[in-house]
Amino acid sequence: MTLSKTSISALFAAVTFVSGSLIVVQTSVADSSSTVIAPSSKTPIVNRAITESEVLAAQIAWGEALVAISTTYDMKGIDAAKALAEKVIDAAYGYQFGPVLFNPTLTVGAQTFRTTRAGALAYFVGGDPAFPMDKGFALKGWRKVEIKNAAIFISGNTASTMGNVIITGKDGNVTIVDKTWQFFKDDNGKLRIILHHSSLPYKGK
Amino acid sequence: MTLSKTSISALFAAVTFVSGSLIVVQTSVADSSSTVIAPSSKTPIVNRAITESEVLAAQIAWGEALVAISTTYDMKGIDAAKALAEKVIDAAYGYQFGPVLFNPTLTVGAQTFRTTRAGALAYFVGGDPAFPMDKGFALKGWRKVEIKNAAIFISGNTASTMGNVIITGKDGNVTIVDKTWQFFKDDNGKLRIILHHSSLPYKGK
Amino acid sequence: MTLSKTSISALFAAVTFVSGSLIVVQTSVADSSSTVIAPSSKTPIVNRAITESEVLAAQIAWGEALVAISTTYDMKGIDAAKALAEKVIDAAYGYQFGPVLFNPTLTVGAQTFRTTRAGALAYFVGGDPAFPMDKGFALKGWRKVEIKNAAIFISGNTASTMGNVIITGKDGNVTIVDKTWQFFKDDNGKLRIILHHSSLPYKGK
Amino acid sequence: MTLSKTSISALFAAVTFVSGSLIVVQTSVADSSSTVIAPSSKTPIVNRAITESEVLAAQIAWGEALVAISTTYDMKGIDAAKALAEKVIDAAYGYQFGPVLFNPTLTVGAQTFRTTRAGALAYFVGGDPAFPMDKGFALKGWRKVEIKNAAIFISGNTASTMGNVIITGKDGNVTIVDKTWQFFKDDNGKLRIILHHSSLPYKGK
Repeated sequence: MTLSKTSISALFAAVTFVSGSLIVVQTSVADSSSTVIAPSSKTPIVNRAITESEVLAAQIAWGEALVAISTTYDMKGIDAAKALAEKVIDAAYGYQFGPVLFNPTLTVGAQTFRTTRAGALAYFVGGDPAFPMDKGFALKGWRKVEIKNAAIFISGNTASTMGNVIITGKDGNVTIVDKTWQFFKDDNGKLRIILHHSSLPYKGK
Repeated sequence: MTLSKTSISALFAAVTFVSGSLIVVQTSVADSSSTVIAPSSKTPIVNRAITESEVLAAQIAWGEALVAISTTYDMKGIDAAKALAEKVIDAAYGYQFGPVLFNPTLTVGAQTFRTTRAGALAYFVGGDPAFPMDKGFALKGWRKVEIKNAAIFISGNTASTMGNVIITGKDGNVTIVDKTWQFFKDDNGKLRIILHHSSLPYKGK
Repeated sequence: MTLSKTSISALFAAVTFVSGSLIVVQTSVADSSSTVIAPSSKTPIVNRAITESEVLAAQIAWGEALVAISTTYDMKGIDAAKALAEKVIDAAYGYQFGPVLFNPTLTVGAQTFRTTRAGALAYFVGGDPAFPMDKGFALKGWRKVEIKNAAIFISGNTASTMGNVIITGKDGNVTIVDKTWQFFKDDNGKLRIILHHSSLPYKGK
Repeated sequence: MTLSKTSISALFAAVTFVSGSLIVVQTSVADSSSTVIAPSSKTPIVNRAITESEVLAAQIAWGEALVAISTTYDMKGIDAAKALAEKVIDAAYGYQFGPVLFNPTLTVGAQTFRTTRAGALAYFVGGDPAFPMDKGFALKGWRKVEIKNAAIFISGNTASTMGNVIITGKDGNVTIVDKTWQFFKDDNGKLRIILHHSSLPYKGK
């Protein structure tokens, strides 16, 4: 077999892309001058990389969970709300890996950082004598969550977001926070929050 | 604002997914009972994760480059082929990071592993007195490359493939190799080969 | 060769570790019953993983840089301080990758998030009409920085920290902030800040 | 507080490192001119990065396991050897994540790649009618394993090695293979083999 002039030209067209970056090839690999038979996209795969859509879904899930805890509290009381909060923490945060880098919006002093599961639970539903300042952030009647990302950085098996989260209570009051999340994809392919820094916007003076 | 019975049901439908994995939410977040306003997919993003399609494109590019070097050699001679091979290595491999884990198909003895750029170039085009056994693998008249992946593992910012690569020469001879590649996404967002193990299939006895 | 009873026992001692996790082996591989000759620790290596000591060094470097900009401003004026701030941003942040997730302590409104290099520079040294609220945070006479981490999460090629940073001015005034950083190891093996969320501690009410 | 000339010099010494890479600071942060109080190295940490010593330990563990299976077979028979092989596979490989990229040394044809646990077990101990060519590689009387790495690439939460593994049987026969491994750190902090390509060295002609 020898190549026709046409296919040779095609090859050199491909070659001109080589310098400076990974070779870019024609996507129409099925055309007659093609000399590479593309691999199938049906290969068995393990994929531990995070996609943007997985990040957005995890953010929405966090918002849904906050509203669900608030609504459960209003409808069924503190025990049901606490039980749900525990499920949410166990499902959405990464305390099974060790400390979570969690700085909630309204924590103070030596209890600012909630690196333990107990600290996170106390923040969301209160009632823990070890965290006496906690009134239960998730019990405050939240009914609506809006997420506005300023930027996202996906490193590979972890992804970070920064932006505003606007939450609205059943009384119509609106709270805006600056929020940073980092998600880590676990061995089951689920995203878990391993970093969460929330703060009230600076007011200036 | 108070929630209607309908929207409460919707919330609890969402909540039932909580246990055992990250909360799965309804994708129809725009419906009237929705309480979460999804983040925009237009956020500025840095994405260092590797997708399956990037992996397949990088494999195809390797095949195109092999055929291009062979064809260049036949049409323009060794100097042009060597110049092209250098461009290919610099564009597609990761020697700028340090040693590449490269075990070509036909290398022997103390020169089996080509962890340096010079060793890779010698393997592809020969002519290096430091690698006297090398005859120039990419000069052997290759005209067609077919890639058949057995499996892919994407870790995040790196991805690995294993399978067969079938290469056909201009004389119609077919060579099959077992090939493993690992690609790493660099600071420019390009995939680079940082591991390449190629071997002839075991023949049994 | 047949194994003595002693070496068989040693083997089975090793085997008892197998279940439940990766096999743990005796480190005294050189003893007479050993059957594995350990690989050398002198192997050529590319290492893109981040160590804890690299994280701590990068934090200290950030503190040194803040003090250096402040001191340069006091000694040499705004032009020298701005030139230094540009070097610091280019050396320590990851704007060459794209947007950086940067929420400085004192920014407000639509300019809260400084995802661009220009926004970061304006925050540190002011003087940019596009960021009229910025007075130049790094010009405020800082002389001392103390870093108190609450927790660290190293994902692999990226690492995150959360804790307090206490900065002291030349007048002795002390400012405490809650600070989250995420560092990413670049192609040159250097850590770069790709996320930085700083906030004043919540005051309660 | 004003800085003495001495401490100013120290600052500018630090500053001269700024351009071109992340700022390198003096490690003697406790000296009198220091302006940064280093973070403690006692911070609670989650560390998913892989170290070189973890890689070497995992390689040794693989060698110990191979010898242990062989010795168990000789001493206790096939049932005990098979039971041990299952434990080894479950402890050291990553089949719980999905397909493992495993190309053993002596496999042929359509069964070259052992992406399933059953395929790996058949290769090591034989006796599976679904893999009729397998005679049980780990049953061949192996008593000694030597590992010689050519190069290592640590990406972050995954690490790859390439080199020779020399295995010696109880009859003194020596087999050398070219071997590539990729290890992935799991949610429990253990390294698991997610890629393993082994081949007999090319013989030339």
